Amino acid sequence: MTRDCSFLEELPLEDDQVSFAESRREDRAADWGSEQRGREVLPDAVVWPESTEDVSTVLAAATERDVPVTPYAAGTSLEGNAVPAHGGISLDLTRMDDIVDYRPDDFQIDVGPGIIGSEVDERVARDGLMFPPLPSSGDISTIGGMIATDASGMQTVRYGEVADWVLGLEAVLADGTVIETGSRAKKTSSGYNLTDLLVGSEGTLAVVTEATLELAGRPHQIRGGRAVFETLEDATGAIAEAVRTEVAVARIELLDELSVRMTNDYLETGLPDAPTVFLEFHANHGIEEEIDLCLTIFEDHDVLEFEISADDDEMSELWEARREIAFAVENYEPELHTLHPGDVTVPISAYPEMVREAKRLAEERDLLAPCYGHAGDGNLHHNVLVDPDDPEMVERGEEAYRKTVEKAIELGGTVTGEHGIGEGKRQFLEDEHGAGAVDAMRRLKRALDPTDTLNPGKIFPETAEGERVRDDET
Amino acid sequence: MTRDCSFLEELPLEDDQVSFAESRREDRAADWGSEQRGREVLPDAVVWPESTEDVSTVLAAATERDVPVTPYAAGTSLEGNAVPAHGGISLDLTRMDDIVDYRPDDFQIDVGPGIIGSEVDERVARDGLMFPPLPSSGDISTIGGMIATDASGMQTVRYGEVADWVLGLEAVLADGTVIETGSRAKKTSSGYNLTDLLVGSEGTLAVVTEATLELAGRPHQIRGGRAVFETLEDATGAIAEAVRTEVAVARIELLDELSVRMTNDYLETGLPDAPTVFLEFHANHGIEEEIDLCLTIFEDHDVLEFEISADDDEMSELWEARREIAFAVENYEPELHTLHPGDVTVPISAYPEMVREAKRLAEERDLLAPCYGHAGDGNLHHNVLVDPDDPEMVERGEEAYRKTVEKAIELGGTVTGEHGIGEGKRQFLEDEHGAGAVDAMRRLKRALDPTDTLNPGKIFPETAEGERVRDDET
Repeated sequence: MTRDCSFLEELPLEDDQVSFAESRREDRAADWGSEQRGREVLPDAVVWPESTEDVSTVLAAATERDVPVTPYAAGTSLEGNAVPAHGGISLDLTRMDDIVDYRPDDFQIDVGPGIIGSEVDERVARDGLMFPPLPSSGDISTIGGMIATDASGMQTVRYGEVADWVLGLEAVLADGTVIETGSRAKKTSSGYNLTDLLVGSEGTLAVVTEATLELAGRPHQIRGGRAVFETLEDATGAIAEAVRTEVAVARIELLDELSVRMTNDYLETGLPDAPTVFLEFHANHGIEEEIDLCLTIFEDHDVLEFEISADDDEMSELWEARREIAFAVENYEPELHTLHPGDVTVPISAYPEMVREAKRLAEERDLLAPCYGHAGDGNLHHNVLVDPDDPEMVERGEEAYRKTVEKAIELGGTVTGEHGIGEGKRQFLEDEHGAGAVDAMRRLKRALDPTDTLNPGKIFPETAEGERVRDDET
Repeated sequence: MTRDCSFLEELPLEDDQVSFAESRREDRAADWGSEQRGREVLPDAVVWPESTEDVSTVLAAATERDVPVTPYAAGTSLEGNAVPAHGGISLDLTRMDDIVDYRPDDFQIDVGPGIIGSEVDERVARDGLMFPPLPSSGDISTIGGMIATDASGMQTVRYGEVADWVLGLEAVLADGTVIETGSRAKKTSSGYNLTDLLVGSEGTLAVVTEATLELAGRPHQIRGGRAVFETLEDATGAIAEAVRTEVAVARIELLDELSVRMTNDYLETGLPDAPTVFLEFHANHGIEEEIDLCLTIFEDHDVLEFEISADDDEMSELWEARREIAFAVENYEPELHTLHPGDVTVPISAYPEMVREAKRLAEERDLLAPCYGHAGDGNLHHNVLVDPDDPEMVERGEEAYRKTVEKAIELGGTVTGEHGIGEGKRQFLEDEHGAGAVDAMRRLKRALDPTDTLNPGKIFPETAEGERVRDDET
């Protein structure tokens, strides 16, 4: 369905802020995840707002004309979150990338949504500060995208997720109303928490135009390294116990045996083909005691090797396999590709069972499924590999994938710890939350965006009434 | 206006679960804060639900009959949050006080809303765990009340507020629908964050019937003590710098000179009449280095005395003045009472100015205003003292109070850091958040509770259309 977006030419925007060119539209037809799935939808137009006023003007006009608007930035999301599923406008926020204000004395920075995460981190590093919850894609993903999906990353085990580091937002509702949420105070109980409602709402409730982020001090002591275990049970058991003991790990990542084998192939390295845990310790005092405590725990789980370094280059080398895993998986066999990227996340006590089940569900279907993730959070990326040209294999893969996600729900976990629902996990939303909670979410959506202008076709499963969350369209 | 609540007798509740007796209704006509203000509204009936089903039954029936329902528990709120402003039913949740499930391996506990906060803390202490964000009233206030106001307390400077420790909720909407929010996973980006929308919503969106709380490990090292400064500027400057330096304080509290004088009077102690900072350090390693670092910072701000102890009894004695301050204030002069309890909270860099202004605004009106609070959060309790029988003095007090709250907004802070809006701060909601954000909050309220059954007359300021957040009542 083509949407008439010619009204954009009448709006007070510069020529270089609007494009109908196919090449520009194609660039915003997919995100990383949907591209892997071969899913693309061309928007009818691309708009590059340069101010909050621009966003407000475009949203008010689009809502009036019933034209969908899907926010876009780096396009690094994994669940099709940024695909313009119903066409209309792709609202590219990458030009709104300013550092608007920086208050190091309050550990706060105000930024536009289009700024790259690592740029924030680098800017504040000079003052001994950091933005802790950056995802692994932090040097290409934008702050706006991280807010949209409530992203998190390797340091979340210690420092929490993006939502924990957003103090307030400026955002534009579908009708063009500009709102400010939150406060510069570290805590508030004033009115409804609009900030945390918008964080993770994937651009379906409002478009974020500015964010006030909290920062943390950088630790005085950092050590990094790697531990090798004989069995997956040993590795996951050791991780769970280290987390429970609150050892001062800021990162604790797992690669299963298959993942290590794939990185050995890819990097031509000779790591033992065995489950491997990657560690980084942060402390201001006593880091050696923390490392000793961790080693003691790991020894109880029969650790085979335990290497830790204080040297940046050595740490980087010890971590190489973890850093390259996504590339190693995609390059393992030319015809095999990850069926669906994304993650599940479970309570830490259920993590050993979750990983074991993910592997079993793939293996019993003769499929490869390298497993890795931010293990300290109970987070698992289970990459079921299939040949997209083999429908029978794809079908087996879909079954293994679906049963793995359902297992996460059964274990009290979530179908997506850090990538949002997007298009990819809509069918699981009600399984996880129940009909009552999903209906409450729908009511909130209708309250703030009654025409379903903002990023339609995401989060909510299709209903008997139709695809979109509005009453007048079937 | 009397509401006909006789339908309660038809519902499947036991006799001892419903009362129309005046004495029982009177007990729930006020909370701590409204009592101080002389504000009482009798509910027409009191109901004690004992299960989620009871809550659902009562809410569905009340909504159908347009009878307001106001949740009640310990009644320790300070902003009139639990006053049944429009009559109807006071829903007393204190019988729903079970520990439903406890999973120490996951640092999680599921409890009913009526359980007292300190009971949770005591139960988990046996396993070396704690529930960190308990407010100062934690040994009488309930978890449900803490969730309703997104409470926080002395340890918030280190561990965050209640919202940071709620993983999920079971709650009942006005129409009786039971929903479950969140997940047992430590992080999730699955659908809208209903949990953090309900936390702090003061029972206006849903009634919480069960909460999954996160727990933390108790620190291995604890030290407590007290520091005395010559001037308020020295004390607040030292606090701000200690927070910025991320010294391992888990509590850092301020009493101004007047507050100390009042506690000396009340306790017959001989502390120096000078601004005093109360400290507690938590660490797993190197606590002595942390204390030394703190002393160095305090010396830069001309600290006069600095006493720290590792002994429980000594720590308790050093903290006595802080513990007794609320009683000391109320007993200072028989005819003088706090005009409005509650707090304001500002960014830490603005804290010195906030305290100075609060004192100046009172002093220039010849009023006493002892100032104290959870200084590390930028939190200030500014108790303007007046004789309620002296209308001219009350008027001066109201002006000092109002200007103090407005100053907090001007400094980028919030009108209520930890007690909610309730009735007491409704007139400031729009000043803090702006018309757009308040309208968005109203839309959310109407979406989940279109008849304004739940705790009407709270949070939102009165509008031209009337007192309640609904379209059909003026």
